[in-house]
Amino acid sequence: MQPYELSLARAADAIRARTLSPVELVDSVLDRIEQAEPHLGAYVTVTAEQARRAARAAEQDVAAGRLRGPLHGVPLALKDLIDVAGAATTASSRVRADHRAQADSTVAARLAAAGAVLVGKTHTHEFAYGLTTPQTHNAWDRDRVAGGSSGGSAVAVAAGTATFALGTDTGGSIRVPSALNGVVGLKPTYGLVPRHGVTSLSWSLDHVGPITRTVEDAALALTALAGHDPRDPASLAACGPDHRPVGATDLTGLRIGVPRNYYFDHVAPEVEAAVRRALAGLESLGAQLVEVEIPMTRYIQATQWGLMVPEATAYHERTLRTVPELYQADVRILLEAGELMPAGDYLRAQRARTLMRQAWGRLLEEADVIAAPTVPATAVKAGDETITWPDGTTESVSDAYVRLSAPANITGVPALSVPVGHDTAGLPIGMQLLGRPLGEPVLLRVGHAYEQTQPARRTATV
Amino acid sequence: MQPYELSLARAADAIRARTLSPVELVDSVLDRIEQAEPHLGAYVTVTAEQARRAARAAEQDVAAGRLRGPLHGVPLALKDLIDVAGAATTASSRVRADHRAQADSTVAARLAAAGAVLVGKTHTHEFAYGLTTPQTHNAWDRDRVAGGSSGGSAVAVAAGTATFALGTDTGGSIRVPSALNGVVGLKPTYGLVPRHGVTSLSWSLDHVGPITRTVEDAALALTALAGHDPRDPASLAACGPDHRPVGATDLTGLRIGVPRNYYFDHVAPEVEAAVRRALAGLESLGAQLVEVEIPMTRYIQATQWGLMVPEATAYHERTLRTVPELYQADVRILLEAGELMPAGDYLRAQRARTLMRQAWGRLLEEADVIAAPTVPATAVKAGDETITWPDGTTESVSDAYVRLSAPANITGVPALSVPVGHDTAGLPIGMQLLGRPLGEPVLLRVGHAYEQTQPARRTATV
Repeated sequence: MQPYELSLARAADAIRARTLSPVELVDSVLDRIEQAEPHLGAYVTVTAEQARRAARAAEQDVAAGRLRGPLHGVPLALKDLIDVAGAATTASSRVRADHRAQADSTVAARLAAAGAVLVGKTHTHEFAYGLTTPQTHNAWDRDRVAGGSSGGSAVAVAAGTATFALGTDTGGSIRVPSALNGVVGLKPTYGLVPRHGVTSLSWSLDHVGPITRTVEDAALALTALAGHDPRDPASLAACGPDHRPVGATDLTGLRIGVPRNYYFDHVAPEVEAAVRRALAGLESLGAQLVEVEIPMTRYIQATQWGLMVPEATAYHERTLRTVPELYQADVRILLEAGELMPAGDYLRAQRARTLMRQAWGRLLEEADVIAAPTVPATAVKAGDETITWPDGTTESVSDAYVRLSAPANITGVPALSVPVGHDTAGLPIGMQLLGRPLGEPVLLRVGHAYEQTQPARRTATV
Repeated sequence: MQPYELSLARAADAIRARTLSPVELVDSVLDRIEQAEPHLGAYVTVTAEQARRAARAAEQDVAAGRLRGPLHGVPLALKDLIDVAGAATTASSRVRADHRAQADSTVAARLAAAGAVLVGKTHTHEFAYGLTTPQTHNAWDRDRVAGGSSGGSAVAVAAGTATFALGTDTGGSIRVPSALNGVVGLKPTYGLVPRHGVTSLSWSLDHVGPITRTVEDAALALTALAGHDPRDPASLAACGPDHRPVGATDLTGLRIGVPRNYYFDHVAPEVEAAVRRALAGLESLGAQLVEVEIPMTRYIQATQWGLMVPEATAYHERTLRTVPELYQADVRILLEAGELMPAGDYLRAQRARTLMRQAWGRLLEEADVIAAPTVPATAVKAGDETITWPDGTTESVSDAYVRLSAPANITGVPALSVPVGHDTAGLPIGMQLLGRPLGEPVLLRVGHAYEQTQPARRTATV
């Protein structure tokens, strides 16, 4: 097994035990990038030289007994919406051609302080406003979409070209590519991880979170990321505890809510089967499966788009006037549509969100965790614009990919996507666990327990 | 001195000492209503019979030693936007002709539980969407406006036709009529007093609070009103402490911020002089006056209207379609204007508010309290639509009356209006004290200390 294949936790163990040096680990990941990146297109920039320098410094710190914790010397990729001082934040857009970040984003600064080594910035669907990330290929089938908008980060982690990565999630952009590439994606509680220095898509729905190979890795990353920052107006005062899950797999007494509506409608049979198998696995660990009714489902899509479209347009107001031709057509159409929306439609969406948050609060008294598919289908072929369901109805790919993710963005509840196998075409399937606000420890405990019952996952072979 | 002239605190003392019975007090106030109300027009409904019944019950409770606290048996008036089970909530509008409230609002229920005796519902500018309350006459000069939108409540308390009252404040609607009628008005911190069962004007700016004859009375009322209610989505978890101020008048060590900009621009000379005299009085009590700069003043008006107009229209959406002719012309024009506002304008106002809250947070580190005029002029003649300033410029009455009040609605900070004398025409002048979020105890302490240095105020003689 090569160092680039190690999970964050195992790499951290080896570095602590001094059986692996940060330089060996970073070199292994950089070699993997050289070999695999040409087939993946996951990176906007690879910062090999700075990474090697940082790795040598991390190695000296280890030698001097200055271990900064589990992220010390571990290779990291950042979605290219996340500011790193002195580097461009391109948002994978020509609009940002001349951009240079003045300072580190809060999350980049916190991970650097924890010793993580940045190996590069990864592709996003332009300005995070889409679900496919066309520049990037799926890690398991290069003719398939990576998913989005954090496609580059998910593909890099899946293929071993980064040990862990950060993504952002406004309507599923961490969970969707994580599910479609067979890795773990965590959208934390709204406000738990500060967004200062992260390019906004829709500030009332935007989240930053980790993409990793295991749930334990997500917990280690979240522990370094969580905590108040007054520079993000939505940042919660609640400080982040240590999220590293305990090893125990006993789930006795835990109630897992299984939706009787919405989350299993128009879901590919192989996806539903894999999720139900995983639920049976959780039941065998002692969890109790309880049937739950998802509230206000007919308002979900209108609320997600009613909030996101005008907020995105407000953020791009100036450049939409000055350089509209620099946007990709799909993104420009969405941004220009936002200029036509009346305030009343936005207010209706805000009011629906308030009621939805209250209704979900009641729902999450009936169960400790809700379990559901992350995405209703596996990765579509690049260029496909619609999905046809067994009943003959069709749905646009973006609507289908957002559909099961949006509730957690609207309500702000935490959501964790965990791999639960592959379909007969060999494409990964994800299960989504949703919890109460600040209920990350429960999600991580359940996801970790499930992982213990599964064979260790391999990185995608490119 | 008649019982109707007693402050809430003194009436409570007398009831506790059993030198005054709830029946005597309520009868005195009801007699005062019979005598004065024809000249005031403060009430939509006077509930004399229910009040007498409640007074007798309160008297029996006292006799049986079941005293419920300082509000026990004290006559109360509610602005007619506040639901009382089984009664109409007219909002002083023909649109509400057939309305009946199913249940008590949270504030009505809390005051009833504290033993207060409802004597009637008071006039508001239609749906609280205006600053004059045309149905009601100023308590000191019946040819002058009452101010609004809580004009009925302020006039009733000023004239002794209620011992205390509740108002609502979206752009100054508690503080403006309190200042113009020489009584105390408190707009609490946003979210401290629940709005469940109170007709909304603009939910992100709406507040409910007490109108009283003394600062001590405001503290007693707030103690009964404050506290979390999950049925108001904006309700703060922070529970209300006992707000009754200590008697001490020593303000040594307290920093009072005196604005060098905005709050003294275009203010009538007699108003400015009265406020500066009051500031000198506070200085003589040991407070330190520090000059402060009010931030982002050129955004205040656009932010207030940018938030209020579309939120008000959203609330009236249905009736605006079905019965537009039932609204008064001034209110209908504002509501219809809201239908034309693009989402982008509302979002700009929301973003400006976020920045303004942050800037005020820094401002309130330089001073413990900000002191300023409540309204830049005393009550105008009924029918006057503009104010002409000494420099020859003119301003609409509503713009002038909202101008110094709006910052506390936009930022959510608490604001207390205290009477600081009368102009040469005998019209009352108010001073506004603004504090940090949940800083009510400091505002009440300063206002109470100031009052101790003043001769006791009389009720307006009609």
